Amino acid sequence: MQRSDRPGPLSGLLVVDMTRVLAGPFCTLLLADLGARVIKIERPGRGDDARGIGPLVEGRSAYFLSLNRGKESIALDIQARGDRAIFERLLARADVLVENFRPGVLDRLGYGADVLAARFPRLVLASISGFGQTGPFSERPAYDVVAQAMGGLMSITGPEDGAPVRVGTSIGDLAAGLFAALGIVASLRHRDRGGSAAPIDVAMLDCQVALLENAIARLAATGEVPKPLGTRHPSIAPFEAFAAADRPLVVGVGNDALFRRLAETLGVPALADDVRFTTNAARCAHLAALRAALAERFAMASCETWLARLEAAGIPCGPIQDVAQVIEHPQVRARNMIVSIQDPAGPFPVAGNPIKSPAFDDPPTRPPAPALDEGRARILAWLAEEETP
Amino acid sequence: MQRSDRPGPLSGLLVVDMTRVLAGPFCTLLLADLGARVIKIERPGRGDDARGIGPLVEGRSAYFLSLNRGKESIALDIQARGDRAIFERLLARADVLVENFRPGVLDRLGYGADVLAARFPRLVLASISGFGQTGPFSERPAYDVVAQAMGGLMSITGPEDGAPVRVGTSIGDLAAGLFAALGIVASLRHRDRGGSAAPIDVAMLDCQVALLENAIARLAATGEVPKPLGTRHPSIAPFEAFAAADRPLVVGVGNDALFRRLAETLGVPALADDVRFTTNAARCAHLAALRAALAERFAMASCETWLARLEAAGIPCGPIQDVAQVIEHPQVRARNMIVSIQDPAGPFPVAGNPIKSPAFDDPPTRPPAPALDEGRARILAWLAEEETP
Repeated sequence: MQRSDRPGPLSGLLVVDMTRVLAGPFCTLLLADLGARVIKIERPGRGDDARGIGPLVEGRSAYFLSLNRGKESIALDIQARGDRAIFERLLARADVLVENFRPGVLDRLGYGADVLAARFPRLVLASISGFGQTGPFSERPAYDVVAQAMGGLMSITGPEDGAPVRVGTSIGDLAAGLFAALGIVASLRHRDRGGSAAPIDVAMLDCQVALLENAIARLAATGEVPKPLGTRHPSIAPFEAFAAADRPLVVGVGNDALFRRLAETLGVPALADDVRFTTNAARCAHLAALRAALAERFAMASCETWLARLEAAGIPCGPIQDVAQVIEHPQVRARNMIVSIQDPAGPFPVAGNPIKSPAFDDPPTRPPAPALDEGRARILAWLAEEETP
Repeated sequence: MQRSDRPGPLSGLLVVDMTRVLAGPFCTLLLADLGARVIKIERPGRGDDARGIGPLVEGRSAYFLSLNRGKESIALDIQARGDRAIFERLLARADVLVENFRPGVLDRLGYGADVLAARFPRLVLASISGFGQTGPFSERPAYDVVAQAMGGLMSITGPEDGAPVRVGTSIGDLAAGLFAALGIVASLRHRDRGGSAAPIDVAMLDCQVALLENAIARLAATGEVPKPLGTRHPSIAPFEAFAAADRPLVVGVGNDALFRRLAETLGVPALADDVRFTTNAARCAHLAALRAALAERFAMASCETWLARLEAAGIPCGPIQDVAQVIEHPQVRARNMIVSIQDPAGPFPVAGNPIKSPAFDDPPTRPPAPALDEGRARILAWLAEEETP
């Protein structure tokens, strides 16, 4: 839908999108932001469930708007013959079909992986599900909170010695959407170099495991089960929040030279020569003493004062910004990371595309999310035109 | 390094990897898992800083092992003439150069984007940084905790009415690595279809903003600044953890039909007809009453009992698993999401590749991370062979 002279690296790609709610729509949003044309297939009548998720702005879901901007919509009843024919005409022209039904549903609709591979050999099928297309839990339903809980991320997120919490954004869905997008583009590369259009099978649970990072290594190396650690890093110190006189700030000190600079900036240079603190391993081993010594200093001045001094010394640091502060931050603005949807209900801010390149346009305004079925006439006319010999 | 009959969709791709620590190495790990050949350029003597990050297993960093499996290593002093020549011979053959220096450093080494574009027009340069290659904060240093704090994710993660916490894994780095990998493969597609090898500029801060999901929409729609919410979802209910008699479990009830089934499963079917709870909007509006009614029921039986009943009713649910439980879970095992590195110090478990496809091999064992400079002779011999007319 977006017109541009430099339209993104995936321009020319056609994605047929049967996904609903979050993981799938986030995946196809990423593809759309990279220049792909995304045609969203929705159920007649209600459409994507996300159209009903609050908060609502003039009766429209802000949640839906933010995930589906720049896509086209056509309502198709996949169990009705006429609509199946339209669906198949789209698949015949498409590069990618993305779906996030429960495993088995697409098969029962008559469009299982084998059927699609036989009839549409150029089509990359990407399936996103809670637990994956294989394995004993395959057919179970999952939402984000289940993936975060069963995948281990919840067990290591929360206050130190406290109860686990959910990551405040649906990282179970978002991670699956990201991995699926990467898998899709990789599979297209394989196809375009003469390989098959390999289907992609991404599970929310698997993606959570893939994000556990050093937690698995720590368990294997030490036998200790990782726990929530508040704001701190498990094996780098100091790397956490401290309370300045007015509000908290964070510092990340990744090596010993930085620690020396931190000690000097805080006015306690002797700390860097204290044998308890000279190496990262020593600082981790004497964490309580380290924290006490630093906390005492941070409490003596305001967040703003410390940040100015730390920045001057080249020490990674920052305030804990709330979302209102984030969207106004000069760097976030300079990077065009808050773009404006030109919605019929008025302009609406959403996150921009974080894959920046001077070679592609990155407009500050974006087309709106489609009303249900609003692209029907245009899509049918386009199909007819394409099919004319 | 990995030999396979079905070697992954990015096989044949050569990635020269100058990255250190986490965001960059995670990006190139994703590319390696998809079949690319990754040659890691390290500083002579010390190599990647991550080689020193604990926990250590027989003197080797488990952290480094898990992020660098399957890559090759060559130690090059990029400021020395002989090593620059080797580096440039690699770039002449490479598809991708990934770097996560502070913006400006690569330029000062003589390999800025313009130089590379002129000398190596087929090379996609991917730069990962804390704040990006542009904007007023561009040259500031950042580690994960800074990105999480400044990007807003920390402000919405934590106990309800409590202090913010860091996501228990370095999602600031990991998200940047994922977006960069996606950008790289997309840019390659653009190049291979006749476009330029567009450079990619990914910032940790931008990626955090891109993951804020509905938090931006909620702020814009309601004017309320999003806060930490414990384990619950901001606009879907019930969607959180409850205490069973012995330990907590999570449920995710995404629609009204599921809520009816939940009420029946809990033995309180009348709840589904209570006007306070008949719709998701009503349930969110009467959250305290909803939670009290559900909590009373969940406390009456064990986690295992409730999960069996909820699963039978098709309600998304699960236990909060710790990392030890995750790596032994039958679904995680069935999906080959814990693979074994064949390290000289013994086999070592790490997360597998979550981009599954029946078209590509997904071996349960993987080659180890390289010792510093261990690939030198092989890489130089390969270059000489390639360059022989």
